[in-house]
Amino acid sequence: MKALIFNGPEDIRYQDFQDPQIETEDSVIVKVRKSGICGSDLHIYHGGFINDTDFVVGHEFIGEIVEVGENVRGFSPGDQVLSAASIGCTDCPQCKIGRVTRCERGVTRCYGQGSLGGYLQGGQAEKVMVPAAETTLLHMPQGVSDDQAILLTDNLPTAYFGAKNAGIHPGQAVAVIGLGPVGLLSVECAFILGAARVFAIDKVPERLSNALELGAIPLTGDDIKTQIKEATKGRGVDAVIEAVGADATIIMGLALVRNEGTVSVVGVNMNKSIAFPIAWAQFKNITFRMGVCPVQAYWNELIPLVQSGRIRGKNVVTHHMKLSEGAEAYRIYDERKDGIMKIILETD
Amino acid sequence: MKALIFNGPEDIRYQDFQDPQIETEDSVIVKVRKSGICGSDLHIYHGGFINDTDFVVGHEFIGEIVEVGENVRGFSPGDQVLSAASIGCTDCPQCKIGRVTRCERGVTRCYGQGSLGGYLQGGQAEKVMVPAAETTLLHMPQGVSDDQAILLTDNLPTAYFGAKNAGIHPGQAVAVIGLGPVGLLSVECAFILGAARVFAIDKVPERLSNALELGAIPLTGDDIKTQIKEATKGRGVDAVIEAVGADATIIMGLALVRNEGTVSVVGVNMNKSIAFPIAWAQFKNITFRMGVCPVQAYWNELIPLVQSGRIRGKNVVTHHMKLSEGAEAYRIYDERKDGIMKIILETD
Amino acid sequence: MKALIFNGPEDIRYQDFQDPQIETEDSVIVKVRKSGICGSDLHIYHGGFINDTDFVVGHEFIGEIVEVGENVRGFSPGDQVLSAASIGCTDCPQCKIGRVTRCERGVTRCYGQGSLGGYLQGGQAEKVMVPAAETTLLHMPQGVSDDQAILLTDNLPTAYFGAKNAGIHPGQAVAVIGLGPVGLLSVECAFILGAARVFAIDKVPERLSNALELGAIPLTGDDIKTQIKEATKGRGVDAVIEAVGADATIIMGLALVRNEGTVSVVGVNMNKSIAFPIAWAQFKNITFRMGVCPVQAYWNELIPLVQSGRIRGKNVVTHHMKLSEGAEAYRIYDERKDGIMKIILETD
Amino acid sequence: MKALIFNGPEDIRYQDFQDPQIETEDSVIVKVRKSGICGSDLHIYHGGFINDTDFVVGHEFIGEIVEVGENVRGFSPGDQVLSAASIGCTDCPQCKIGRVTRCERGVTRCYGQGSLGGYLQGGQAEKVMVPAAETTLLHMPQGVSDDQAILLTDNLPTAYFGAKNAGIHPGQAVAVIGLGPVGLLSVECAFILGAARVFAIDKVPERLSNALELGAIPLTGDDIKTQIKEATKGRGVDAVIEAVGADATIIMGLALVRNEGTVSVVGVNMNKSIAFPIAWAQFKNITFRMGVCPVQAYWNELIPLVQSGRIRGKNVVTHHMKLSEGAEAYRIYDERKDGIMKIILETD
Repeated sequence: MKALIFNGPEDIRYQDFQDPQIETEDSVIVKVRKSGICGSDLHIYHGGFINDTDFVVGHEFIGEIVEVGENVRGFSPGDQVLSAASIGCTDCPQCKIGRVTRCERGVTRCYGQGSLGGYLQGGQAEKVMVPAAETTLLHMPQGVSDDQAILLTDNLPTAYFGAKNAGIHPGQAVAVIGLGPVGLLSVECAFILGAARVFAIDKVPERLSNALELGAIPLTGDDIKTQIKEATKGRGVDAVIEAVGADATIIMGLALVRNEGTVSVVGVNMNKSIAFPIAWAQFKNITFRMGVCPVQAYWNELIPLVQSGRIRGKNVVTHHMKLSEGAEAYRIYDERKDGIMKIILETD
Repeated sequence: MKALIFNGPEDIRYQDFQDPQIETEDSVIVKVRKSGICGSDLHIYHGGFINDTDFVVGHEFIGEIVEVGENVRGFSPGDQVLSAASIGCTDCPQCKIGRVTRCERGVTRCYGQGSLGGYLQGGQAEKVMVPAAETTLLHMPQGVSDDQAILLTDNLPTAYFGAKNAGIHPGQAVAVIGLGPVGLLSVECAFILGAARVFAIDKVPERLSNALELGAIPLTGDDIKTQIKEATKGRGVDAVIEAVGADATIIMGLALVRNEGTVSVVGVNMNKSIAFPIAWAQFKNITFRMGVCPVQAYWNELIPLVQSGRIRGKNVVTHHMKLSEGAEAYRIYDERKDGIMKIILETD
Repeated sequence: MKALIFNGPEDIRYQDFQDPQIETEDSVIVKVRKSGICGSDLHIYHGGFINDTDFVVGHEFIGEIVEVGENVRGFSPGDQVLSAASIGCTDCPQCKIGRVTRCERGVTRCYGQGSLGGYLQGGQAEKVMVPAAETTLLHMPQGVSDDQAILLTDNLPTAYFGAKNAGIHPGQAVAVIGLGPVGLLSVECAFILGAARVFAIDKVPERLSNALELGAIPLTGDDIKTQIKEATKGRGVDAVIEAVGADATIIMGLALVRNEGTVSVVGVNMNKSIAFPIAWAQFKNITFRMGVCPVQAYWNELIPLVQSGRIRGKNVVTHHMKLSEGAEAYRIYDERKDGIMKIILETD
Repeated sequence: MKALIFNGPEDIRYQDFQDPQIETEDSVIVKVRKSGICGSDLHIYHGGFINDTDFVVGHEFIGEIVEVGENVRGFSPGDQVLSAASIGCTDCPQCKIGRVTRCERGVTRCYGQGSLGGYLQGGQAEKVMVPAAETTLLHMPQGVSDDQAILLTDNLPTAYFGAKNAGIHPGQAVAVIGLGPVGLLSVECAFILGAARVFAIDKVPERLSNALELGAIPLTGDDIKTQIKEATKGRGVDAVIEAVGADATIIMGLALVRNEGTVSVVGVNMNKSIAFPIAWAQFKNITFRMGVCPVQAYWNELIPLVQSGRIRGKNVVTHHMKLSEGAEAYRIYDERKDGIMKIILETD
């Protein structure tokens, strides 16, 4: 089959690759129809955390089941499905309820990251093997577009997870730092959780406009802390969702939040450690929460919200390309040209 | 001064009444600018629960402070304020945090209900005495209209209380039974708490249109249970807000809700008892919650939501009249003519 | 095999019965070692709710797996297990997480109740078929006695469910009405949830002593409400667990609880309806919650508490008899002689 | 009057000091009967964070009111009281409900810390001025010993706050790191919140014995992580309460907790920053929560638990001395001799 293969840093190519096989009786083979490029795929693109080459990339995909293992219940060839980005051991109590990042055996695998992700071949391919279909696949829900389905494989649950981790209560003021796909979706999720005001912080004008369109209050500049203090009568915001992953934006989050507030980090920080201002944070009574989203644990709540139109995922997907154009897609995404937010690849 | 006086069932008149006096050092006198007629005022109008006559009616009002007691902190003559409908003992830990309906001394007073409400003269008058100003008054918030301010004195907190009591979680399906002022506001509140779908149930076409305008799914007819079953794949809704107060609508709520769901009653039921289907409800694992709202306990959450426009109170106030037209206002409200929802009276 | 068979009201006998067979591929056959008689078995004994005869009774049992269906994962012949009393459809999302009483298909089956329980033959027998082993069986946990294991099949989770439903917070005052097996275990559970004081209400001196031994404050007599008022400075208790199921004790619960408190009913009420004092309860802002426990949903929390000795189940099991003495066991249990609380039957 | 005065590092002396005066109308003067030396007082003793000298030390005290300001409600001369260690602005909504460390004006004052604490003279004195009596004092509750009352001024609420911040649920496994007064009290509080097992970690044999006596599992040595892994089948504990404040013990906490677990820091860390292992913590989905306790916010929950004997504060207070022996008390406390845990000083 054809697939996007990681050949080394900045070298992802559309190439031939061996067809996936059913390896365990609870697995299925999915013929991929569309796949998304995630911000975290750019870490792979640059070789971050990665130790090997020659694997298929991509962890966001939707498609049709073409083969099922003997023990698979509830899924059959011909079914249209979307997939969660991560898989745990599939067998412990936490994995069984979709809480894969709390796997009691400590096994968390992700598609398309080589050895780092547990050697699961990725979904930016014509076909992909999905282990433990019952805990990782979802039948395509009625009333959900393809773009929204791709968002449901990772970005939207991650944004919602970040918003929930922020402990948002109705009537509160929330800051979202970084308005890429996850940040922009976090604005929508903060409103779903009852936020009265969402301050949306970024440097790119188009991104600030996107947030404004959702009802957020766009903020930019070097004096964000001052702007937030003024807007909150000196108190700070009740909760912060950090969707960048840089040290500076995490520290900014700690500065923006009020006493007894929560800073929720969903941006992926690649550093071993960060200089955390412990004495100051203790005086402020801060909750600092971070994590990687167990995607499938949030489908129950999110699907009806997408179906009813309360969450739209508007302005997130900006580009549609062919899988065969994948090398180019990674290149332009990395350059962040043309107001690019998210690219979806269609299998040729 | 002039005020609306209860002279007996169906006999409320605009008459002279003695001016209110500061009776305790924590009290203030408010010159009323506007007052609202609440659905529960119609119970008074018909003499329900009421044992006496010759008192001022009305528990929803906004105005200007004209006199303050010696011990009042934080309020001065000239301040524009809105008031909570209910007052507790003012001194126990629950009353101090605004949870007046959980008063540890069991004292809950309400304006304008004669002996039933603890002899607090009502606010449909030129002036009214407000005891314990610190726990019952709020400075008029910026960016809140007069109509919204009146809603904040009772109907909106009651709707929000009903929605919170229903235990709504994001993504859920909710039914609101009865689309009067509290019911219509409950639709808005259910969305604030994250409801994916709100089924709005009534018999009056205008009221169903109002709910549709808010994004709800209007339902009417004799087969509501069937309609709900179909819309929820046989499961029932996750939560019900009952905003009528009739036995039949309470029982309907128990039928509409799914197993382990919650029925929250905010409609005032005047009956001593109701035939509650205990064995069936136990098999369904139902939570049945009912109450009278401690208005001031919810201002913190609601004010920012009104200020930011997330809650609008749209289509609730349909009529504005003069306080001197109060007798007529009660009469037409009781007849529910002309799509009447709520009347606000302006002091002449 | 031999089993206890319901032949009609007050007529349960130790008789021959056909051996159970594996009927679905997810089922197992358990050779029963011990079984418990539940208070609700007395309803069966008297023919309450029951429409048929000639079925095996009993829903509390532990034993050894002797045969497994083809699709069973995680259980093998020779495994020592305990079972949950109830089973749902086994396949919907709620059943998969053990929340069987919230089954989305509305299927809740219980062993040993004939057509009422969905024709599942009971566990007071030499052998019993267990459908959906994965969602209803638990390997016998280390450090749990046989008596405690029997309690874990129903009574202890039911007590804990009742305590959780009561919304108990640390430092609160709780009343438990009725000190049979579920009531006495509720006293232990209320303390686990942080209750500062537990008022234990019954008429039988031995039962009051049992509660006293657990640290509760025993109350008896005709003036319970007065006693509670005095002990709580007039406020009432924060939460009530009703473990009798009679109309009078439910109404007592509503009277004992403070404003904004919760009455949690776990006693089984056999009446179609109860005269619920709606206006008064609304004025008190009461939460009224009732249900049948999804046993397997609470094992995760309860097993470690039993293993560590924080929950002991002390004084609950008072009699051990042989399965062949079952007819006599039902008779003496029904007479409540000799301080009888709970009988465990051992297979001969 | 006589008081313990900070003259410089390691130089606290029993000396003459000016009598306190009523400075604001909401203040009272308390004649101190007993005061406690807190672990954090040793930071003062060594001059940590401190910029000035010649102030009275101590923030834990109980005594009798001898003078009240004009605006004080609810307290009179002759009343026996205990005090909270911290005071906010006294006027914002958060301070009014005792949540002083979330003061909306950012004002948090503490007794006996010179300029650091907002120049509030301390309670290790014959008399002390208490501002805002209504939000910081509590009438001595019935059935609470003097030692327990001193614990209620700071250490016990801090331990409880730490346990609550750890998000403990019934049935969980908890680790407490450091078994000084706050750590030992945290063991009691973890059990109140439903912990099935509490692993108590320290190096001092007497402290480990104290924890064992409370039902905890004492752990010591260089391989704590291995011991915890074995005891939890490789998963780690559900929650950690860190009661030391050192970098190493905070990092240990992050290592001991399971995925999606919480590390709650109540030990005071004096460092500007700590090297926080961000990438690893994100992969583990950790909640990291830290703070300074708003003492008065927890009295409602804790007083009934102390009164009923469910929390005892056993083995915490080891020494009773005279206020005039204060210099010696600080010296021996700093040396941690003789199994010393906590010293209470009695005014001569």
